Amino acid sequence: MRILITGAAGFLGQRLIRALAQRGTLGGQPLAHLILLDQVTPATPAGMPCKVTARATDLTAPGALDAALDDRPDVVFHLAAVVSSAAEADLDLGMAVNFDVTRTLLEACRARGLSDTRLIMASSVATYGGDLPPVLDDMTAVTPQSSYGTQKAMSELLVNDYSRRGLVDGRVLRLPTIVIRPGRPNAAASSFASSILREPLNHEEAVCPVPTDLELFVMSPGKVIEALLHGAGIPEHAFGPWRSLMLPGITVSVAGMLDSLRTLGGDEALARVKHQPDPRIEAIVASWPARFDTRRAQQLGFKSDNNFGEIVEAFLDDRAKPL
Amino acid sequence: MRILITGAAGFLGQRLIRALAQRGTLGGQPLAHLILLDQVTPATPAGMPCKVTARATDLTAPGALDAALDDRPDVVFHLAAVVSSAAEADLDLGMAVNFDVTRTLLEACRARGLSDTRLIMASSVATYGGDLPPVLDDMTAVTPQSSYGTQKAMSELLVNDYSRRGLVDGRVLRLPTIVIRPGRPNAAASSFASSILREPLNHEEAVCPVPTDLELFVMSPGKVIEALLHGAGIPEHAFGPWRSLMLPGITVSVAGMLDSLRTLGGDEALARVKHQPDPRIEAIVASWPARFDTRRAQQLGFKSDNNFGEIVEAFLDDRAKPL
Repeated sequence: MRILITGAAGFLGQRLIRALAQRGTLGGQPLAHLILLDQVTPATPAGMPCKVTARATDLTAPGALDAALDDRPDVVFHLAAVVSSAAEADLDLGMAVNFDVTRTLLEACRARGLSDTRLIMASSVATYGGDLPPVLDDMTAVTPQSSYGTQKAMSELLVNDYSRRGLVDGRVLRLPTIVIRPGRPNAAASSFASSILREPLNHEEAVCPVPTDLELFVMSPGKVIEALLHGAGIPEHAFGPWRSLMLPGITVSVAGMLDSLRTLGGDEALARVKHQPDPRIEAIVASWPARFDTRRAQQLGFKSDNNFGEIVEAFLDDRAKPL
Repeated sequence: MRILITGAAGFLGQRLIRALAQRGTLGGQPLAHLILLDQVTPATPAGMPCKVTARATDLTAPGALDAALDDRPDVVFHLAAVVSSAAEADLDLGMAVNFDVTRTLLEACRARGLSDTRLIMASSVATYGGDLPPVLDDMTAVTPQSSYGTQKAMSELLVNDYSRRGLVDGRVLRLPTIVIRPGRPNAAASSFASSILREPLNHEEAVCPVPTDLELFVMSPGKVIEALLHGAGIPEHAFGPWRSLMLPGITVSVAGMLDSLRTLGGDEALARVKHQPDPRIEAIVASWPARFDTRRAQQLGFKSDNNFGEIVEAFLDDRAKPL
């Protein structure tokens, strides 16, 4: 198995590399070559079970993908993206990275006749927006209210068309809000969703800027990685006429998240969460859909977290392990 | 009013020019300058009430839109497109014309600060496809099953994002199947829908390749032109968070179309329609959705034909008039 990962230095890319290293196989085939691309050289764990090529590459530069595609990868995990706040701040950058790189990748596969290459693209709940029904499914229109969502939705359409034409074997996974992310709080509107759990469990204070009845559609990092790997293994015919689907997150209220925090971290952990309403953040987060019918993804074998408590437990387990 | 029309030599472009010439105004403002672009020099009727610049231009060439946009048009009717069969036969050509030209047009508006320019883009029922519900509306996912539909859907997303960012004032109108088109039968799968009426009314034979219970979602050329003009006049705030909408066609079965033919052309006209089933054409046409809830378009003031008989009557009226 020759595998290319774009965005390999990112949070998901790094976890995906470790998961591949631990398994040593993908789709029952031993790993042969892992090509890892990102703006900075992706880190690789010691003792990888296959050849690894890790390179710092500006994917928007002409020919940037040529060498990687000349290796004729069996599977491409296309995770490289400019995040939503950056895409909103810089339209040209977002178009170049989130859309044009996807198009270039598809064209590079087409030019090399890589019709059997499985291209797994990470998309986002941000493709949805605007006036939405109470419960969404894969037949709900994507009417994104951000340039990031627009660029992802356009890339989704192109992956589907190139797949329909038999030029590549694409699969598009729309990711729920990922909770609990490691690291530090950042400027993203969703940052609090990880922060109000991660910081108290690390004996630090956190700020909750939204009402506790606000709901989110979430998935643990571990389940997202499982989904990416599972997405590479599904037979092409199982997808039918459309290759984009929302992964089976779970719907949880902020109150439910804090209940899990108290169960696993105690009253002292809960007390570290300060409630400071921020209407700006609430407006953004409340616009994200929180309820989805994901039967289609489940029929295709994608697994959700069982409950929010498990997500917190998985975070505590991860923290205890050396990475 | 300075107006730019791309695809101005086409069937809709030519009718739009004549409608503008007859009105002499748009949005209550007198016409000042009409810029008409197409692959061939667009014809213009005698006695146009304003300055007219008609040019043969390859819109995919670098800078092809510069001179037209330097004129700072108040309204752009973006009708230029490669039709579905051509876009399916030549992916590069379809991407270049149906998507890249739209992107270039949006960028040209952005570069010149034309944030108030109203950009009316013609899109298509072909953005829909795949496994669809019995009745569609503007919140039904677009899952196109053709490269033409894909390229239109991507362009729609981009027009929406540039409009949301305030870089242009875009409006996207998804056109139903247009019946009765003038001219001769062509290779399009939908050609029969005009042909089974036009040819018998012109005392010629026509072939109906589909079962008579097959339904279509149709609109007369006259109502499409009215919709394009109406779309330019709607205040921006009326659209809310999404600028794409399906125009209010009417649902009619082939049997219903033939009933109107008999009513207006008599039994002898009906007898000129030969039924020769073509499963290939039936498969394509049956995949097009025929039932839409278009309340949103109607609330915005777009008008449908009242019934199919009126569509045939309008064709007969048009035929009687010198063009």
